[in-house]
Amino acid sequence: MTDNLTLELRRGAIVLAVLSQLEKEQYGYSLIKLLADRGMEIDQGTIYPLLRRLEANGLLLSEWRVEGPRPRRYYRASPAGKATLEALGNEWKRLVEVMEGLMS
Amino acid sequence: MTDNLTLELRRGAIVLAVLSQLEKEQYGYSLIKLLADRGMEIDQGTIYPLLRRLEANGLLLSEWRVEGPRPRRYYRASPAGKATLEALGNEWKRLVEVMEGLMS
Repeated sequence: MTDNLTLELRRGAIVLAVLSQLEKEQYGYSLIKLLADRGMEIDQGTIYPLLRRLEANGLLLSEWRVEGPRPRRYYRASPAGKATLEALGNEWKRLVEVMEGLMS
Repeated sequence: MTDNLTLELRRGAIVLAVLSQLEKEQYGYSLIKLLADRGMEIDQGTIYPLLRRLEANGLLLSEWRVEGPRPRRYYRASPAGKATLEALGNEWKRLVEVMEGLMS
């Protein structure tokens, strides 16, 4: 049960974590590595569907580019994505404050 | 989309918020009020199923008691619930730190 609850706890923050790193463009693997280096481990099976979902909702822009041995799809936040990042970031700060009050 | 994402953001924290307030027993309405007073608005349609789910998983204990005009079901954290509260609380603190790093 605790494992599930821990996953639930992180799930909501994952969108915010992803958006926060896409003001500069990244491809899937570089994004996973960037997040992991900063303490947020998210596996491929979560990241790729999430990137597609955020793009389908207009929050990300993407393009294929060939630079290495094979094409990579690069993602970056759209203007709507940047606005969502700001709105969610504010919600997050509010939530952190509320939780601090509840847990103290 | 932003509304859904905001809901997702809060969803994971709700279990932790609820557990944090059940070291002393509460009935549904008193819990909703307590949380709302501290800035966490959770509606009945969320709280009641969550209380039943947490009890089914052994994290809460409950008993019916008649004190007012009708019986009320009082909930409190079980020993397993208190252990989960501590574990999730630690996960939360870690998540808050990671997100702070990502968003700065």
